[in-house]
Amino acid sequence: LPANMRTSTSLKVRLPVLIFALQIVMLVLYSLFVTYDDNANAKMQNNETNPMENSMYRDYPYFADVQVMIFVGFGCLLAFYRFYGFSGIVFTFLTAAFSIQWAILIQGFFQFYDNGKIHIGIINLLNAEFACAVVLISYCAVLGKTSPVQLLVMSLLEIPFFAVTEWAVLKYIRINDAGGTILIHLFACYFGLGVTFVLYRPSLNNGHVKEMTSYNSDILCVLGTLFLWVFWPSFNSALTIKGDDQHRAILHTFIGLCSSTMTAFALTAMFNKRGKLTMADIQNVTLAGGVTVGASVDMMISPVAAYALGIMGCTACFFGYKYLTPFMARRLRIQDQCGIHNLHGLTGLISSMAGICAILLFAELQLLIPGLKPGLGRTAKEQALFQFAAIFATIAASAVGGLLTGWVMSLKCMAAPSDEDCFDDELFLDVPSDFDTGVV
Amino acid sequence: LPANMRTSTSLKVRLPVLIFALQIVMLVLYSLFVTYDDNANAKMQNNETNPMENSMYRDYPYFADVQVMIFVGFGCLLAFYRFYGFSGIVFTFLTAAFSIQWAILIQGFFQFYDNGKIHIGIINLLNAEFACAVVLISYCAVLGKTSPVQLLVMSLLEIPFFAVTEWAVLKYIRINDAGGTILIHLFACYFGLGVTFVLYRPSLNNGHVKEMTSYNSDILCVLGTLFLWVFWPSFNSALTIKGDDQHRAILHTFIGLCSSTMTAFALTAMFNKRGKLTMADIQNVTLAGGVTVGASVDMMISPVAAYALGIMGCTACFFGYKYLTPFMARRLRIQDQCGIHNLHGLTGLISSMAGICAILLFAELQLLIPGLKPGLGRTAKEQALFQFAAIFATIAASAVGGLLTGWVMSLKCMAAPSDEDCFDDELFLDVPSDFDTGVV
Amino acid sequence: LPANMRTSTSLKVRLPVLIFALQIVMLVLYSLFVTYDDNANAKMQNNETNPMENSMYRDYPYFADVQVMIFVGFGCLLAFYRFYGFSGIVFTFLTAAFSIQWAILIQGFFQFYDNGKIHIGIINLLNAEFACAVVLISYCAVLGKTSPVQLLVMSLLEIPFFAVTEWAVLKYIRINDAGGTILIHLFACYFGLGVTFVLYRPSLNNGHVKEMTSYNSDILCVLGTLFLWVFWPSFNSALTIKGDDQHRAILHTFIGLCSSTMTAFALTAMFNKRGKLTMADIQNVTLAGGVTVGASVDMMISPVAAYALGIMGCTACFFGYKYLTPFMARRLRIQDQCGIHNLHGLTGLISSMAGICAILLFAELQLLIPGLKPGLGRTAKEQALFQFAAIFATIAASAVGGLLTGWVMSLKCMAAPSDEDCFDDELFLDVPSDFDTGVV
Repeated sequence: LPANMRTSTSLKVRLPVLIFALQIVMLVLYSLFVTYDDNANAKMQNNETNPMENSMYRDYPYFADVQVMIFVGFGCLLAFYRFYGFSGIVFTFLTAAFSIQWAILIQGFFQFYDNGKIHIGIINLLNAEFACAVVLISYCAVLGKTSPVQLLVMSLLEIPFFAVTEWAVLKYIRINDAGGTILIHLFACYFGLGVTFVLYRPSLNNGHVKEMTSYNSDILCVLGTLFLWVFWPSFNSALTIKGDDQHRAILHTFIGLCSSTMTAFALTAMFNKRGKLTMADIQNVTLAGGVTVGASVDMMISPVAAYALGIMGCTACFFGYKYLTPFMARRLRIQDQCGIHNLHGLTGLISSMAGICAILLFAELQLLIPGLKPGLGRTAKEQALFQFAAIFATIAASAVGGLLTGWVMSLKCMAAPSDEDCFDDELFLDVPSDFDTGVV
Repeated sequence: LPANMRTSTSLKVRLPVLIFALQIVMLVLYSLFVTYDDNANAKMQNNETNPMENSMYRDYPYFADVQVMIFVGFGCLLAFYRFYGFSGIVFTFLTAAFSIQWAILIQGFFQFYDNGKIHIGIINLLNAEFACAVVLISYCAVLGKTSPVQLLVMSLLEIPFFAVTEWAVLKYIRINDAGGTILIHLFACYFGLGVTFVLYRPSLNNGHVKEMTSYNSDILCVLGTLFLWVFWPSFNSALTIKGDDQHRAILHTFIGLCSSTMTAFALTAMFNKRGKLTMADIQNVTLAGGVTVGASVDMMISPVAAYALGIMGCTACFFGYKYLTPFMARRLRIQDQCGIHNLHGLTGLISSMAGICAILLFAELQLLIPGLKPGLGRTAKEQALFQFAAIFATIAASAVGGLLTGWVMSLKCMAAPSDEDCFDDELFLDVPSDFDTGVV
Repeated sequence: LPANMRTSTSLKVRLPVLIFALQIVMLVLYSLFVTYDDNANAKMQNNETNPMENSMYRDYPYFADVQVMIFVGFGCLLAFYRFYGFSGIVFTFLTAAFSIQWAILIQGFFQFYDNGKIHIGIINLLNAEFACAVVLISYCAVLGKTSPVQLLVMSLLEIPFFAVTEWAVLKYIRINDAGGTILIHLFACYFGLGVTFVLYRPSLNNGHVKEMTSYNSDILCVLGTLFLWVFWPSFNSALTIKGDDQHRAILHTFIGLCSSTMTAFALTAMFNKRGKLTMADIQNVTLAGGVTVGASVDMMISPVAAYALGIMGCTACFFGYKYLTPFMARRLRIQDQCGIHNLHGLTGLISSMAGICAILLFAELQLLIPGLKPGLGRTAKEQALFQFAAIFATIAASAVGGLLTGWVMSLKCMAAPSDEDCFDDELFLDVPSDFDTGVV
C-alpha cells in the first residue's frame, strides 16, 4: 500500500480534540461534584483535631510507593522493545495520568459519593492508582500495536467497567481479595485478552521484524522489574486493614516474591537450549509470586504457604509463556503481546483457588480473615462459594467489557498503526538522529 | 584559536583549591556554630519523652522523597544532551551536595540561630534541600556552558542571596507560599536569567553542533521527569502545616500534574508539523502543573481550581517554549538553555496571581489559609497587597543577585568552556572509548 | 584450550538442581520453624490493640528504602562493565533474593528463636537485608569472575558465618555499632578478600580486554551510586534506637556523605593527569562518608565530627584505590575487583577507631551511647577495649570464613568462567543481537 493510501495516523487533530473534550468533561464534573473529604477539609477541623491523626499519614506512604510502580516501574518495563522504548515509557505516562483522573471520578460516584458530592482524599487517589494498574496491565496485551488515541479510549471505557465490577463484587458478593488478585489482576487480564482478540492481526503471528530488544532496552526493562519487585509489598498491602493484617500482607508478598524469583532463575536455565539465562524470563516471571499471594495476602495462611504459592505461581507463569501464549496466538486468535495471561491470569487463578482452599481448610473463619465483620454470618463453605462466584463474575464482566472496548478501538478514526508500523517509535514520536531504523 | 592560546579549563588546581578552601571554612563554621536541635539532642530527652514523637518521624519521609527528586530526578533530567550526559548528572551531584551543606549554614544563621548556635535537625536539611532546588533550577539556564568551578561559585553566592530574601519575605512580608512558588520558582528563575544574561554567548544563538539528544539520553531524561512527577506532591507539601493543609497540598499537586500532563500531550501533537509527539515537551511541559498550583497549594481553593491551574500553567509553559524562549535569546540577550522561564517563571507568575485571586475572592481569609495566625489581623485586600509586594521584591532581589553572580562567574579564572567546547563531556570528564564524538 | 576441552559452564543442570534443593530445604525449614511474630499474628491482637501502634509502621519505611538500595542501587552500581551489564544487575537480583530468604532463617535461629519457632515480622526482614548487603559487598570483590552457582554457594556459606559472628559480637562483646560499620562493612570486606585470595587469577593481573566501561554503563552506575547515596541515611539509621538516636544517625550520615562527595571531586581532579574528573571515583569514592560515620553514627559526636569523618574516610578510600588495590593485586595475590577494601575496609577501620576515640574522650558514656544499658556497668576504657576486641574478632572470623568459602567456590562443579570468558555477559546469558562483542 503506498503511503498516501494508508489510514492516517497523524495525531495532529484527533489527539488534541479527544484530550480537550475529555478535559472539558472533567472540568465540569470536578466543578459540579468533587469536594474534599473530611480529612482534607479545613472546615471539618477544630481545636480537638490532632493534625497527625489525619488519614493521609496512614495512606500517603503507600500511595507514593504505588506511584513509583505505576510511572517508573511500568514505564521502564514496557520500554523493552529496541525501537519502541519512547512509546513504551511515554504512552504509559499518558495512559496512567488520564486513567487516574478518570478513576477518581468514576470510582468516586460508586464508592465515595455522599450528599451529591464525591469526597476526595488520598484514599481515593490510592484506589484510582489501582484502577490505573488495571488499565496498564490490559495495555500490555496490545503493546506496540496501538495509538495513544486508542489507549485513551481503552482507558475511558475500561475504568467504568472496572468500577462497576469492583463496586458490585465488593458490595454484594463481599469477598476477601486484599491484594487485588481477583479484581485487579484477573479483571485486567481478561479485559486485555478481550481487547486483543478483537484487534487480532494475523500477519503478526509470525513475528515482526522490529519485535526485538536491545542491550539498553533490556537493562531498562530489568530496572522496571526491580522497581515493581521492590514496592510490590506496598501494592499488596495498601488497601488491607491496618495493623497485623497489613503486616502479614507485606511479609507474604515479600516471601512470595523471593521464592518466585529463585524459581524463575532455575526454570529459565533449565529450559534454555544452551543452559543460559533468558532476560525475558527474569523480567517477567520473577514477579509472579507477587500476584499469586494476592487473594490470601492478609490471611493467617502461615509463611510457608506464601513460599509455596510463590513457587507454584512462578512455575505456572513460566510454562504459560513457553506453551500457552504461542498456542493462544495460533489457535485462539488471542495475541497476548506481553503474556499478561501468564503473569496475571494463571497466577491470579492459582491465587484465587488458594484463597478458597484457605477459607475451606480453616474452621475459624473470623481468625483467618480478620476483616470479615461478624455480622456477615457466613460459614466457611458459603464464603468459599461467594469467592467462587466473584471469580466467575469478574472474568465474565471483564471479557465482555474487553470485547466491546476492542470493537470501539478498532474503529477507523483511532489512528491504529498498520501492521508494518507496529513496534516503531517513529510512527507517533519525533526521534533523535541516532534512532536506529536499520534492523540488524 | 589554537589550543595553547585558549584559557585553560584544567580543573587540576582550581577545583581542589576551591573545594578545600570551602571545606576548611565549613569545618570552622560547623565547629563554632553548629549543634543539634532539641529533637536530635540526647541531653534534651528524659523519661517522659516519647521517642516516636520525635519531629524526625514527621519530616524524614518528605526529606527522603525530595532527596530522590534532587539527586536522581534532576540528575537524569539534566542528562538529556547526547554528548553531555556525564556532565549533566555529575555536575548536578556536586552542585547539590555543596548547596545543601552551604544552605544548612546560611539558612541556619537566619532561621535556626539561637543562643550563639545553629540548631540542626531534619527540618533544616529539608529547608536546605529547597535552597538546593533553587540553585539547580538556576543552573538549568546555563546548562552545558559552565564549568564545575563556576557552578560552585554560583551556589556559593546564590544561597546567601536566597536565604536573605527568604528570611526577609517570610519574616516581614509574611506571605502564604506553601509550595514555594514565589520563593523557590520565581527566585530561581530570575536569578538564573540574570546569570545567563551576563554570560551571553552570541555565537550560540544559532545552535551548537552538539546541542542534540540521543535515543538513550532522551529516555534517561524522561526517567528524570517521572521521578520529579511522582514525588512532586511531597515537594509541594513538605513545608505546609501538618494535617488537612498537607493533605490538600498533596491532592492539589497531584490533580494539577495530571491535568497538566494531559494538556501537554494535546499541545505537543497539535503544534508538531507532522502530528507527532515531541519528547522535549513531554520531558518538561508535563511538569508545569506542579509549579502552578504552588502558591495556593494548601488553600481551600477546591479541586477543580487545581485542575484548571494545571491546564493554564501547562499552556503558558508550552507557548513560552515555542515563542518566548527564542525571542528572549535573540532580542533580549537572554539564553535560557532549558527554558526555566517557561517552566518556573511563567507558571510561577500564574500561580502567584491565582494565589492573590483566591485571597481576594474569599471573604473568610482564615478559612482559606488556615495557617494564617489570627493575630496578623490582615484583611483579604491587605494580604493580597503583601503577596504582590513579595512577588516583586523576590523578582527584583533575584535578578540583581543573578546579575552580580553572573559577573563573578565570568571572571577569567573560572575555567569557563569556550563556545565550541560547550555541551561536550570530554572537556571536564574522562570518557570511555565508545564516547561518540563524531556528530551524525 | 579448544571449546570442548574446557570445563562446562552450562547452567542447564547445576543451577536448577542447586536452586530446587535449596528451595526444598527452605520449604521444610519454613514449615517446621517459621511463624509470625506477635505484631503480625492476628491471635495476639485484641480489642485493646491499637492497629497503628503495630511495629511495622516503625520499621517498614526503612525496610523499603533499604530494598531500593539493595536491588536498584547495588544492581545498577554493579552493571558498570560494558559487556557485563546484564550479569551485574541480574546476578545481584538472584543473590539478593536468595540471601534474604536464607538470612531470615539463619538469623532467625540466632536472634528470633523462641519456644521452638522463629518469629518473623518486618524487623527480621530488615535484619536479613543487612545480611544480604554483606553478601553483595563481598560479591563486589569477585565481580565478573564468578558464575551464579558460585554466588549462591557464597551466599549459602557467608550468611551463617555472618549470623554467628553477629550473634556472638552483639550478645557477648556488646558493642556499639549502629551503622553496622564493624559487623557489616568490615565483615563483608575481609570475607570478600578471603574469597578472592583463593580465587586468584594471575593472568588477569594485567587487565582483561573486556574490563572497560561504556558511556551508558557509566551512567547506569552513577544512577546506582545516587540511589545508594540518597537512601544511605535510612540504611545507617534503620536499626538504631528510635527517637533522638535515629535522628542523629540520619544527620551524621547525610553530613558525612556531603563532605565525602565534595572531597572526592577535589581529589579526582587533583590526581587526574589532565585535570579532568574520573567517573570511577565519582561512582565509588563519594560514598565513603556513609561508611565512615557508621560506628559512631548515633552518638553525640557533634555535627563537625561527622563532617571531618567524611573527609577522612573519603581521602583514605581515594588513595586506597590509587595505590593499595594495585599493590594488593600484585604483591598479595588479592584481586579486589571493585575495591571493597577501600570503600568498606579502610573506611570501616577509620570509623571503628573514631568510635573508640569518641568513647575514650567522653566521660559520660551513658550520654554518648544512649543505648548502653546502665546495668552493663562498663567504664569508657573497658567499652573501648570491647570495641577493639570486636573489630579483631570480626576481621578474623570473616577472613577465615572467606578463605573456606573461596575454597568451596573453587571446586570443579561450580561453573566458574575461564579467564578469557570473564567480564562477558554472553557466557551465562542470552544477549540481544546488538550486543557489542567487538572490542574498540
